[in-house]
Amino acid sequence: MEKVLVFGHKNPDTDTITSAIVYAHLKNATGIEAEAVRLGELNNETKFALEKFGFEAPRLIGNVSTEAKKVILVDHNEKQQSADGIEEVQVTEVIDHHRIANFETAEPLYYRAEPVGCTATILNKIFKEKGVEIPANIAGLMLSAIVSDTLLFKSPTCTEEDVAAARELEKNAGVNVEEYGLAMLKAGADLSDKSLEDLLSQDAKEFGMGDYKVVIAQVNAVDVNDVMDRQGELEELINREIQEKELDLFFFVVTDILNNDSVALALGKVALRAEAAFGVKFENNTALLKGVVSRKKQVVPALTEALV
Amino acid sequence: MEKVLVFGHKNPDTDTITSAIVYAHLKNATGIEAEAVRLGELNNETKFALEKFGFEAPRLIGNVSTEAKKVILVDHNEKQQSADGIEEVQVTEVIDHHRIANFETAEPLYYRAEPVGCTATILNKIFKEKGVEIPANIAGLMLSAIVSDTLLFKSPTCTEEDVAAARELEKNAGVNVEEYGLAMLKAGADLSDKSLEDLLSQDAKEFGMGDYKVVIAQVNAVDVNDVMDRQGELEELINREIQEKELDLFFFVVTDILNNDSVALALGKVALRAEAAFGVKFENNTALLKGVVSRKKQVVPALTEALV
Repeated sequence: MEKVLVFGHKNPDTDTITSAIVYAHLKNATGIEAEAVRLGELNNETKFALEKFGFEAPRLIGNVSTEAKKVILVDHNEKQQSADGIEEVQVTEVIDHHRIANFETAEPLYYRAEPVGCTATILNKIFKEKGVEIPANIAGLMLSAIVSDTLLFKSPTCTEEDVAAARELEKNAGVNVEEYGLAMLKAGADLSDKSLEDLLSQDAKEFGMGDYKVVIAQVNAVDVNDVMDRQGELEELINREIQEKELDLFFFVVTDILNNDSVALALGKVALRAEAAFGVKFENNTALLKGVVSRKKQVVPALTEALV
Repeated sequence: MEKVLVFGHKNPDTDTITSAIVYAHLKNATGIEAEAVRLGELNNETKFALEKFGFEAPRLIGNVSTEAKKVILVDHNEKQQSADGIEEVQVTEVIDHHRIANFETAEPLYYRAEPVGCTATILNKIFKEKGVEIPANIAGLMLSAIVSDTLLFKSPTCTEEDVAAARELEKNAGVNVEEYGLAMLKAGADLSDKSLEDLLSQDAKEFGMGDYKVVIAQVNAVDVNDVMDRQGELEELINREIQEKELDLFFFVVTDILNNDSVALALGKVALRAEAAFGVKFENNTALLKGVVSRKKQVVPALTEALV
């Protein structure tokens, strides 16, 4: 049987990378040859997690159709967030926690989505259902994913199931989640070695909202001024991207991981709609979004409501 | 909390009706108020199963947006097969065993699809995962669904998991599956009280294949000649439907449940493509399709391959 590739979305984050590694491990443990791969560069948070639990980065791939016939998607389903060439291969499984859109198959498949904060929380269930034990280092990766996606349980996307899964995995992995988790988030929020191009692209996702083409990029920071002090250069880069990709809105969110607020920078021809979306005034293209930390649960629904 | 409605596809079959009843039972057992409803008339097979295990038909609904805000889909996901008004309501869950297409949500949801022969086989797992016991009469409905969708394990859609689930449910329901199953299939294949309009519509599904609009209708029969003796009248009705719905192909499949073959009647401007699809010559618009019993696994892929 030919090897199946397992991967998450473009501009990978910790849940996407670790879930690919974890699910490939589970498939291999149940006798199905699988390899975790990635669609982009690792961020500092993910590097920290992989190093802590002794894993190498998955292999980077380009167009997937030259690599495999069958693939498994984790942590995403929308084709514009997936590998180039995705329409040429058969998606045999999806494990995800996002809305379903721009996704279609010719054949029946295994699709497992649950409205929880993190893919790892679903994977934790699947291990139990299959009766496969979770090794300590794999538990550590899963715990890292939950910490990352829920901002240490503080995001409104976090559910009771995520917290319960994290408590189980914490014991198994042999770390203190609060201590390890904050260290990992801080590693991710260390932006000192990042170019502005990196900041704009490392966690950028594209969305169709009605007829509008929107990119929402997010970075975590310990001090948002580390980023916002360079607003002029940022705007230059963003405006270039708006032109190249014909975007209607580029929404850049810098999230303060200690205070759990975000500062947003909105550019593009419908940028001012963000005022109605969040009920705040944007001055000099920016605004403080109090209590906003989740793209999925807070930013995407608010912008969709305002734009569609 | 407002009641959630649970339903299967239009032109309901036994899996769609019973899975709605069964899953509504499971939701109620876990403290979520749910009602099974249906989108069309029951066929004789489904009536036989409901009567055997002491159930009433679910309530018939029209446009779903006047009935509920939240719905759960079983045994389907494509919107053209779902309730009118489906785009106005929130789909909170899907339990299905078909390909995914023409399906999109704004919010994350619980989506559970597995490539097995029958929705009931997936439901059987979910009962176990939730630790909810299956009452004997509910087990009887689930068994009926598996028998129906797999033609008593003879369809190529039938998996080992379907057989294993049926063996468990058989004990619980207190029936002999071979004996009960054949009686149920024969009840469904009793076409004596059916008008030709009924035959064409009772299990008809519409598919987009490339740019072509295709309807594939299927009926089970003990003697296919009971149906095919009236080919002239059938063609008149089908041609009217092709015109009204602007179809490119109407493919009518009469399946012999004792010999596990089918006779097909193909009409529409791309009807002759069915020759390449099945490697047979159609004479007088009809052909015997040896060993073909499954729309999902045999008819849809073959026609898609020939048309797209």
